[in-house]
Amino acid sequence: MKENGRDIVLLAHGDGGALTHELINNLFLRHFESNILKTLTDAAVFSVNEGRMAITTDSFVVDPPFFPGGDVGKLAVCGTVNDLAVSGARPVYLTASFILEEGLPLADLESIVQSMAGACGVAGVEIVTGDTKVVEKGHLDKIFINTTGVGYIFPGVDLGYHRIKPGDKVLVNGSLGQHGIAVLCKRYGFDFAGQVMSDCAPLNGITSLLLKEIRGIKIMRDLTRGGLATTAKEIASACGLDIWLDENCIPVDAGVKGAAEMLGLDPLYLANEGKFMVIVSPEEAEKAVAVMQGHELGRDASIIGEVKPGKGNVYLSTSLGGTKLLDLMAGSPLPRIC
Amino acid sequence: MKENGRDIVLLAHGDGGALTHELINNLFLRHFESNILKTLTDAAVFSVNEGRMAITTDSFVVDPPFFPGGDVGKLAVCGTVNDLAVSGARPVYLTASFILEEGLPLADLESIVQSMAGACGVAGVEIVTGDTKVVEKGHLDKIFINTTGVGYIFPGVDLGYHRIKPGDKVLVNGSLGQHGIAVLCKRYGFDFAGQVMSDCAPLNGITSLLLKEIRGIKIMRDLTRGGLATTAKEIASACGLDIWLDENCIPVDAGVKGAAEMLGLDPLYLANEGKFMVIVSPEEAEKAVAVMQGHELGRDASIIGEVKPGKGNVYLSTSLGGTKLLDLMAGSPLPRIC
Repeated sequence: MKENGRDIVLLAHGDGGALTHELINNLFLRHFESNILKTLTDAAVFSVNEGRMAITTDSFVVDPPFFPGGDVGKLAVCGTVNDLAVSGARPVYLTASFILEEGLPLADLESIVQSMAGACGVAGVEIVTGDTKVVEKGHLDKIFINTTGVGYIFPGVDLGYHRIKPGDKVLVNGSLGQHGIAVLCKRYGFDFAGQVMSDCAPLNGITSLLLKEIRGIKIMRDLTRGGLATTAKEIASACGLDIWLDENCIPVDAGVKGAAEMLGLDPLYLANEGKFMVIVSPEEAEKAVAVMQGHELGRDASIIGEVKPGKGNVYLSTSLGGTKLLDLMAGSPLPRIC
Repeated sequence: MKENGRDIVLLAHGDGGALTHELINNLFLRHFESNILKTLTDAAVFSVNEGRMAITTDSFVVDPPFFPGGDVGKLAVCGTVNDLAVSGARPVYLTASFILEEGLPLADLESIVQSMAGACGVAGVEIVTGDTKVVEKGHLDKIFINTTGVGYIFPGVDLGYHRIKPGDKVLVNGSLGQHGIAVLCKRYGFDFAGQVMSDCAPLNGITSLLLKEIRGIKIMRDLTRGGLATTAKEIASACGLDIWLDENCIPVDAGVKGAAEMLGLDPLYLANEGKFMVIVSPEEAEKAVAVMQGHELGRDASIIGEVKPGKGNVYLSTSLGGTKLLDLMAGSPLPRIC
């Protein structure tokens, strides 16, 4: 059926019958390259070797689904790849589950699927199985995508709160807050000078490089919902140590800084989709920064803080010379940022 | 915040901050028992041995979320467990991703989570990682859940279209159409004499029993969206053989039969959530029926048809002595049945 001359998603595309088959064959299989996916059985089957695997899941409900620097499809692949990457894993297989609103233009769906395929190519992962549901117009906002991913933990890698010690350094791979600002500006139609682009990118290249080169990596975390501050607080609470961050050292682009100031938002709480925090032993911190800077997703990597004995608090030494206590994000919900 | 005196889901429950943490600790972790889940890291880590694994994903958008015989939570666990089970796998780990509508009563969410935990207990699987998103009131209908599951393929098991041969028998484990009728009657407020209950149940117990006892199992498929007819047609098309079904042998409860007649629906196209089809070598068909009947989810198991040489068609020998060609479901979408 067409709406305004465009082919659209119908309820029957999700009923498991003829139109579902058509959608799978004419759209998904045309973009997602995988011999496992092609079997189209109830479950995808793959061989494993002895070792440790990681699994992670995320549903993506970003509003709007298309934003500067990406779309919900690219986000859905990168988000799940990144959760595996920072866990010390090599991401391998993804599942993709689509919930579509009746009336969604098929061209929009195709464009999103194309982005997913592109991001899979960059990350070197394969979508091996999927699912499609369609709900009545008005019962869902356009498109939600769940991706679940599995990967192999690199042999010998041991990341976790238990390894963090006073003196360890805190690093990030680049400028913070881009994804949050890009999505919010698009959603509300703000047009600041110099459009901010989402930093959405698969991090498994840079994390695997780091794990290979640097033995002293204690933990890695991607800085999505809640941003740097919330993640730092989670880590500090979990290991009962304090984290001191130095505002002067935290990279924030001028575009993000300006937009955040005008919107009354704090870049340290804004979502990122291609940024991660690393805690590393002090002896290897400089080398880790150098390794990150050698990768295109780590050009602006820097040491932004230190772990100290304490009680699970996060302190920010501000650029004005003061000290600020940072807590979990609370009371200022920015829904549907991913 | 309360609405009509009840605690409800807020946007901030999905922002990754303090309220998200509260929801995870006070609700999810209270019901989902798993040492892996407790680590609350970006990805769950587990050990694997050499072998073959299966992975499957499904998003559940059933309307209404509560129906006779189950709810969206029970469905989300059983649906994914069953996809693994019919693939010849022993389901082990599940991920659970929640998309919640702002304003959903927390008591409803808790009741759904409780059902999930109950179904996990019956199926012997563990929810090891999850995700929660909240969208603004009116942008989603109450609650959608994605579950993705992994399991180990039983050693030596080889299921697939390639094994199906003319002469093979077609079996089901019981009466068809209950889930579809239960959900539709609840959704539209139909009140027929004798309420039909959903057949929603984890099938991994009965499938593993079958795989252990019967060598000649060629393929198993659960009969969800599109029902028996659509699944039979998919199998026939894929292997280029005909499937002949005998209407007189297909078990359909009187309650389902009556309701389906009044609603103008064909039980062979109605969704099931605890029924599966088995194709087995003729020599072992009777033994397979006996094994199924020995399990509580197979009391009404029967041989309902046969594979014959042909061109990928499905024929139904009707109770009136005629023959009917069955195709994929088309043109009568019953959205949001699972």
